[in-house]
Amino acid sequence: MEPGILLRGTTIWFTGLPCSGKSTLARLTFEKLGGLGLPVEFLDGDDFRKHFSAGVGFSKEERSSHLRRVSTLCRLLNKHGVIVVASFISPYRENREYARGLIGDRFVEVFTDSSVEVCMKRDVKGMYKKAMAGEIKQFTGVSDPYERPEHPELLLKTDLEAPEESLVKLMNLLRDRYGIPVP
Amino acid sequence: MEPGILLRGTTIWFTGLPCSGKSTLARLTFEKLGGLGLPVEFLDGDDFRKHFSAGVGFSKEERSSHLRRVSTLCRLLNKHGVIVVASFISPYRENREYARGLIGDRFVEVFTDSSVEVCMKRDVKGMYKKAMAGEIKQFTGVSDPYERPEHPELLLKTDLEAPEESLVKLMNLLRDRYGIPVP
Repeated sequence: MEPGILLRGTTIWFTGLPCSGKSTLARLTFEKLGGLGLPVEFLDGDDFRKHFSAGVGFSKEERSSHLRRVSTLCRLLNKHGVIVVASFISPYRENREYARGLIGDRFVEVFTDSSVEVCMKRDVKGMYKKAMAGEIKQFTGVSDPYERPEHPELLLKTDLEAPEESLVKLMNLLRDRYGIPVP
Repeated sequence: MEPGILLRGTTIWFTGLPCSGKSTLARLTFEKLGGLGLPVEFLDGDDFRKHFSAGVGFSKEERSSHLRRVSTLCRLLNKHGVIVVASFISPYRENREYARGLIGDRFVEVFTDSSVEVCMKRDVKGMYKKAMAGEIKQFTGVSDPYERPEHPELLLKTDLEAPEESLVKLMNLLRDRYGIPVP
């Protein structure tokens, strides 16, 4: 498929607790869509912060400023027909609603819903442990709030199902509701 | 022409003193290419700062940080086949060389070369006057340096020719050297 054949971009926005499986699933999504020859870009917190939000911290205000930048970039890429796979904790509802408002009806909020207990078990870097010891401040799920999405386009119980199962559900949604040509 | 038919993006980077005609010519370029149905995006200093570099100042270090972000965005859009028309004073050579290094051989540096005297005459907002009175600090051409490009892809004597004449030269270059389908 030629790049550009998809005339309208889409933002697939993964939100959820640290280690809830956002980035694993986002990466699988990116590879799947890219493998189909679709124009797609992957954005995640660490990388975006390095390039566009260096020095921006994790207070509510700073997270908001950071996520407004993310939203603007998603919109810009969507405008040129690029599908954006965005993986950001994005713990505050108002930031996700800002993104939705800017991006419009091609904003697909995917909530990787996993209990804190399971997230902690999956935390290979030991971030939760450090957060609970007070060594990391403003850590979502421990010392910072996470506001659950009220009406996400897709809720995935990532503590109960394998990433491959979640991926199938997402691909079905993208095909059936958004017309993205996934076989 | 379908979006995406241009498989490789290009960054047309306008540099020059304030009021040297960068944005006028960049706007004409954007409208010309967009009118041909080519995928094109316009980026300029004020707008980019508002969205991605709010609070970033005008010291050498801050300008560098800001222009690294600009460069990253140009590269990202180019990667997806979008032509970027970028209008930034970008007074330091090393920042423009950074952009060139990141973007590669599709980086087209266009120097709008105009004497300070002519720039001042064209300055409808009176910025030069304010800068000379010390009311604006770190103003390129007055209290901050401008390092002239040594080997720009195009040098336009914007103090001697009309924007429409400059535009023709640029379009010829884009067609003949970069294969951009301009009639």
